[in-house]
Amino acid sequence: MSGRRLISLDAMGGDKAPGVVVDGAALALERHPDLRFLIFGDEARVAPLLATRPKLSAAVELRHTADWIASDAKPSAALRGGRNSSMRLAIDAVRAGEADGVVSAGNTGALMALAKFVLRTLGSIDRPAIASFFPTQRGESVMLDLGANVECGADNLVQFAVMGEAFARTVLGVRQPTIGVLNVGSEEMKGHDEVRAAAATLRAGRLAPQFHGFIEGNDITEGTTDVVVTDGFTGNVALKTAEGTARLYSSFLRGAFASSLAAKLGYLLARHALAKLRERTDPRRYNGAMFLGLNGVVVKSHGGTDAVGFANAIGVAADMIANAINARISQELALLGAPPAGDQAAS
Amino acid sequence: MSGRRLISLDAMGGDKAPGVVVDGAALALERHPDLRFLIFGDEARVAPLLATRPKLSAAVELRHTADWIASDAKPSAALRGGRNSSMRLAIDAVRAGEADGVVSAGNTGALMALAKFVLRTLGSIDRPAIASFFPTQRGESVMLDLGANVECGADNLVQFAVMGEAFARTVLGVRQPTIGVLNVGSEEMKGHDEVRAAAATLRAGRLAPQFHGFIEGNDITEGTTDVVVTDGFTGNVALKTAEGTARLYSSFLRGAFASSLAAKLGYLLARHALAKLRERTDPRRYNGAMFLGLNGVVVKSHGGTDAVGFANAIGVAADMIANAINARISQELALLGAPPAGDQAAS
Repeated sequence: MSGRRLISLDAMGGDKAPGVVVDGAALALERHPDLRFLIFGDEARVAPLLATRPKLSAAVELRHTADWIASDAKPSAALRGGRNSSMRLAIDAVRAGEADGVVSAGNTGALMALAKFVLRTLGSIDRPAIASFFPTQRGESVMLDLGANVECGADNLVQFAVMGEAFARTVLGVRQPTIGVLNVGSEEMKGHDEVRAAAATLRAGRLAPQFHGFIEGNDITEGTTDVVVTDGFTGNVALKTAEGTARLYSSFLRGAFASSLAAKLGYLLARHALAKLRERTDPRRYNGAMFLGLNGVVVKSHGGTDAVGFANAIGVAADMIANAINARISQELALLGAPPAGDQAAS
Repeated sequence: MSGRRLISLDAMGGDKAPGVVVDGAALALERHPDLRFLIFGDEARVAPLLATRPKLSAAVELRHTADWIASDAKPSAALRGGRNSSMRLAIDAVRAGEADGVVSAGNTGALMALAKFVLRTLGSIDRPAIASFFPTQRGESVMLDLGANVECGADNLVQFAVMGEAFARTVLGVRQPTIGVLNVGSEEMKGHDEVRAAAATLRAGRLAPQFHGFIEGNDITEGTTDVVVTDGFTGNVALKTAEGTARLYSSFLRGAFASSLAAKLGYLLARHALAKLRERTDPRRYNGAMFLGLNGVVVKSHGGTDAVGFANAIGVAADMIANAINARISQELALLGAPPAGDQAAS
């Protein structure tokens, strides 16, 4: 947790940029006073926002660019034409060693394409993954991939397991994180070739003592394992299904409280407790999807979030930097082929 | 809704068989007095249960068999060795025209394998699918496949769309059901080849006016479309993720109400309204997964359900029979290659 942490910010990404980015940075700075920011964006719009925030201004270097990546730009167009965009320059700063990590609320596909192109993948990682942590019955777990890779081979899934394990151990602080591979049943013969081959590799390798085996959709929120490994198609659908279900439940709950006078009174009495429930399930609390498997810390904020959500995304990047997540992933990757830790100790 | 509806029941399937099966049948008979049952199971265990229920007994023919399919039996073993099992005989009764449909709370894989073997697929259907309806912000929708087919080609997805549409129109009573294909984004270029090819076929065919396009995980509970089409891997994970999320939210809610005296009092005042919420999200209400695409009505009850849930599964089978669901699916399949209904009217 020591040392300078300098985060570059894409001021022009997201639905409410640059206001939310500046307000979010101010909030993050209150929580983590050691943070410093390199902000890329339109000076004419960003400078006036900074002018009203002297404390933040003292922690910020603003670099002007008039270009940004549109929210509907194709990744290929961002690669070709986005050389001077706020997003690209913010990533370039990480590559140049000027910043320790980057946060953007812009176009996900463009951010992944630019980050892969500029930062390159980490060590033997074949494909980076998008990861996020979320609340469970037991605490918090991390799931990946959430949409970077629509189709994944067994090797990709195994690498996701390694990255998720390193994340849970360092950033979430779980001593021996357990790992599950998402499937349609827990028996060994269930599922398609990719999940079966990935499970076989994990069962035989160094992470075997932490490998729980196959898990099912309900295990995600039950917190059966600390790490949930899946392909980007399934992971993306699962994440959004969970979000939608929480909203449905919440809307049913509002309906119930509005349905009678007694229920309305009951709501008034319970409102402080219910506010805590809202806080616990607040999507802003879990804002900040991590791009794992790159030579650099990259965090994607939800495009529609507010300053609280954006500050949380910055907090995620700050945690990843403080925990040297990429060094941990590299170490694990180097050991991947080695026998389980138990066997090693015995030899 | 007219005429006899005779449903064969596998008395020995499920965690609490045969008690739940008999109690569920009694409850279903109260709701649908025209139902008649052909029950297959161990006479020594089932007959005493029927003896205490004279009204049900008058609507039941019990056929003895000492055999049943174990909950962990492999589908291949059920096919080879299950000839005299209660599940197999209950399906045989549909094939023989003795029953109009079958309900079992037994082993899902065995039920699908036996049903496919005995009843064969309907018309040009390549692979049957498991479908279920569920609550949304707008009412109810139906999703398929939920796990029968881990890998699906574009043709399978298109057939699922046809079957889901026929189900929503007849059993759910939606006049022009809308159809969505589950994907990781709504843009045409998103996703893998199978979903893109399925969408292209649906956009060009007779169901085009009802085809909404791609939907995402959150659209499932938002009720964006009446029919959600997906492969069995994704559908199974999405369904179980939704169930898990509802349980998580519900447990957070219980925690909130227990967290202070005011909240406890609030709960007491709101408890009638909250009971309605519980009812609305009660998994038993949505018990009964439909196997669509077979020459016969087959409904799978959750193995752990109680009599209320089992009665609902029987109700689903009764609705499918009353609405001649398979005749509707056959009609739609025959028209699949035809141009959209609008074009037809113009010619």
